Amino acid sequence: MNSNQLFEQIQKKRSFLCVGLDTDMEKIPSHLKELEDPIFEFNKQIVDATQKYTVAYKPNIAFYEAHGVKGWESLQKTAEYIKKNYPEQFLIADAKRGDIGNTSKMYAKTFFEIMNFDSVTVAPYMGEDSVTPFLSYKNKWVILLGLTSNVGADDFQFSGNPPLYQQVIKKAQYWASPDELMFVAGATRAIMLGEIRKLAPDNFLLVPGVGAQGGSLAEVADYGMNSKCGLLVNSSRGIIYADSSENFAVVAGQKALELRDEMDQLLNRFCK
Amino acid sequence: MNSNQLFEQIQKKRSFLCVGLDTDMEKIPSHLKELEDPIFEFNKQIVDATQKYTVAYKPNIAFYEAHGVKGWESLQKTAEYIKKNYPEQFLIADAKRGDIGNTSKMYAKTFFEIMNFDSVTVAPYMGEDSVTPFLSYKNKWVILLGLTSNVGADDFQFSGNPPLYQQVIKKAQYWASPDELMFVAGATRAIMLGEIRKLAPDNFLLVPGVGAQGGSLAEVADYGMNSKCGLLVNSSRGIIYADSSENFAVVAGQKALELRDEMDQLLNRFCK
Repeated sequence: MNSNQLFEQIQKKRSFLCVGLDTDMEKIPSHLKELEDPIFEFNKQIVDATQKYTVAYKPNIAFYEAHGVKGWESLQKTAEYIKKNYPEQFLIADAKRGDIGNTSKMYAKTFFEIMNFDSVTVAPYMGEDSVTPFLSYKNKWVILLGLTSNVGADDFQFSGNPPLYQQVIKKAQYWASPDELMFVAGATRAIMLGEIRKLAPDNFLLVPGVGAQGGSLAEVADYGMNSKCGLLVNSSRGIIYADSSENFAVVAGQKALELRDEMDQLLNRFCK
Repeated sequence: MNSNQLFEQIQKKRSFLCVGLDTDMEKIPSHLKELEDPIFEFNKQIVDATQKYTVAYKPNIAFYEAHGVKGWESLQKTAEYIKKNYPEQFLIADAKRGDIGNTSKMYAKTFFEIMNFDSVTVAPYMGEDSVTPFLSYKNKWVILLGLTSNVGADDFQFSGNPPLYQQVIKKAQYWASPDELMFVAGATRAIMLGEIRKLAPDNFLLVPGVGAQGGSLAEVADYGMNSKCGLLVNSSRGIIYADSSENFAVVAGQKALELRDEMDQLLNRFCK
């Protein structure tokens, strides 16, 4: 999927919502826990109920790994289910990988060949040769950490002049085109989204931190949107754990619809 | 395992060698490929042949993930095999993980509960709250990326004043004691190991890049050793792929023995 195709989906759905599948056995409704693969079943129902209002899904790989082999089975089934039934959805492996070249190549193989994700989140600390192996796949994307939404972002990301996160965003644009490179840009610092947008006018930004982490959607759109939307806004806990009864998927769908409606208005305002 | 116990092993074995299990289906001897789990069988034979001369093993998680569910099975079996048969070996998950708190907590669960590794390599970009969840386990270690051995290290790790890698090494020592925190320090820049040793006098350093990547063991010891050795030097390809015949494990053992003998001399010289 290239950026024009992604923008087409955003226009069609009137949404730039990404649903984060941070699926946690301790938080899923109890009636699912007796099934053979509760995590996959939960994901399937969440996806079926929300897909009309979303353009992307983002399984958080840590939550699957934490169940060992069984967790990887759930992850693989989830990715296959989404790609088979909703091939128009942009699929993000939130993995924060990055290592020396021969190792990043293996991670790229995992997510792009074994599992057919469209993109992987990558940590920039190890530099260009830790990122480029992910870029050798056509129509696949790197989503590079720029400015993250957590408290610890202050430890190193603002270090230097210009601050490290800006150096990352500038330099990475020499490595890849806006058709294969997005940046993670935390919503808890909406004003800095404006800075990032200036440095990367054409790149999509993946924005976590709306909802449970406290960021405002309207501010994100105000500071971060470009003429082709240029945003994927992620919500995880606010949607998938909005309800813990047997009705969880319906409520997740309603929450996604609410965000979609707000996004529809923001698209009308900022991105005609 | 704490740092004294690790040093005891180093004294006993006269070795500070870590063998990297970057096990690649394309590189393992062809006679193994017909077995049910060639990767595990390869690792088992490598470990059996080298364990007398090593104090640590470091499976590179990417190489297992790249085979999906089956790869995770091989990884889990490898970790179990080492811990069951050679519990004195220090087991490193070379995973370069790191994410917001609730997600790092899941990665910690994966490697410390599901798989009983002693340590995980962690990327520092997201700061303190991405690292501390790994530190809530007693006698488990974080091995934080300081200065890496790849070309891309130059992109960001030298940025700022002091350079980013030094900021990371300084700041992280406020988060954890030298009994739970090591740093990755690339051997391709031996002279900088001296700088790192000054900043972190008591921490173990995990040194990749000796062998295939070109670093010199004597230089590493000269610049990096402290009174309790303070070094784990990794070799992967130079040992595990030294021979591709049915004799591969014997040759791997010989290569490990050669390094052990060199390490023995260096321990005598620098760390009595």
